[in-house]
Amino acid sequence: MEPTEIWLETLITNTPQEGRELAIKMARKSISAIQTDPEIRKKLRPQYANDTAQLIASSQVIATEFQTVASANNYWKK
Amino acid sequence: MEPTEIWLETLITNTPQEGRELAIKMARKSISAIQTDPEIRKKLRPQYANDTAQLIASSQVIATEFQTVASANNYWKK
Amino acid sequence: MEPTEIWLETLITNTPQEGRELAIKMARKSISAIQTDPEIRKKLRPQYANDTAQLIASSQVIATEFQTVASANNYWKK
Amino acid sequence: MEPTEIWLETLITNTPQEGRELAIKMARKSISAIQTDPEIRKKLRPQYANDTAQLIASSQVIATEFQTVASANNYWKK
Amino acid sequence: MEPTEIWLETLITNTPQEGRELAIKMARKSISAIQTDPEIRKKLRPQYANDTAQLIASSQVIATEFQTVASANNYWKK
Amino acid sequence: MEPTEIWLETLITNTPQEGRELAIKMARKSISAIQTDPEIRKKLRPQYANDTAQLIASSQVIATEFQTVASANNYWKK
Repeated sequence: MEPTEIWLETLITNTPQEGRELAIKMARKSISAIQTDPEIRKKLRPQYANDTAQLIASSQVIATEFQTVASANNYWKK
Repeated sequence: MEPTEIWLETLITNTPQEGRELAIKMARKSISAIQTDPEIRKKLRPQYANDTAQLIASSQVIATEFQTVASANNYWKK
Repeated sequence: MEPTEIWLETLITNTPQEGRELAIKMARKSISAIQTDPEIRKKLRPQYANDTAQLIASSQVIATEFQTVASANNYWKK
Repeated sequence: MEPTEIWLETLITNTPQEGRELAIKMARKSISAIQTDPEIRKKLRPQYANDTAQLIASSQVIATEFQTVASANNYWKK
Repeated sequence: MEPTEIWLETLITNTPQEGRELAIKMARKSISAIQTDPEIRKKLRPQYANDTAQLIASSQVIATEFQTVASANNYWKK
Repeated sequence: MEPTEIWLETLITNTPQEGRELAIKMARKSISAIQTDPEIRKKLRPQYANDTAQLIASSQVIATEFQTVASANNYWKK
């Protein structure tokens, strides 16, 4: 069940933009960890990409992951 | 999949009001990152703008993003 | 899309009660930022004011906004 | 729209148990702030008190409010 | 409405595992605070224990309560 | 009701990746704590693994648990 691929080496990113991309990646990797079959994930994609309620729920996950990433990076303050 | 446009240069804003606008932008950019087709997004818009449950869920995303922005700005305390 | 009205000058309030009122205002302003037509908002109001699931979801947004306001005010500790 | 009754004088409580009761009160007061008619609230009550999904959603609001109360009280550490 | 039973003496636990059990207890006590009739709660139980969406929502409540408990215990760091 | 198995010895992990795996485990253990019958859990699995709304909700739980784990590990900063 545990993914053998190492995809999260660090929470530190160079910029807020990269932190945002990491947050999106984290959200996606959670889906893959639960639904491990890539073929099924592919078939499921239209379900949520065209359903605003699910798009909003996905945005909520990204917002939550980004809180963690932003805090880890001390909000990219110099 | 990753957006090439750099839209998040910094989490720092001059005022709480601008922080609020950034939080709304962050919420919107998450939707665009998942549903990348602007034509489809346009068609989906009435779905959520007239559905109070989805408006409330969107407000939840904004509230979560704003937590991050407000914390990054130390709540705009002088 | 961005509201031109400045409604969020500060997160600082005199009392917890006023902080609560600000949190409610923040939640409401998010709705207005997405559904910008006041006439439509008025028509939508009965949808959520009589639906307990939506009342609860609205309370969740207020609770989240209040976390930010309370933290900004250091929980109104003297 | 704003309640004139002052119900939130302080976030400080003597014990975690009292903090829990405050969190429940905060959740309830949010509902009252949106649905201001006590008669309608009374009629709505069976809707959520017998619907587990809504009971769980209410618990989520209480958990979120309690995070704020617990933090304000420094987790009641001596 | 307020429970007279004192069930939350402290947020401090000896171990993360006990913290987890406290978080589950907190989530359950919220349900009891809203639906105060134990007979009705008993009848409602199959509704959510066999509905994955509600099981997931319950897990969300536990995760949120555990954030509070873990923070109160400084993550059980020595 | 309380699990006798000790599965959460510590929140500390060596790497962010291991922290992520712990967050997923925490989310799963919550489900088991509520639906204690492994046979029923097995039967329920297809319900959520093929329903994008539930996959997204599960990701939200993981994101929330990971906030706690990441904070406990001070974001794995050296």
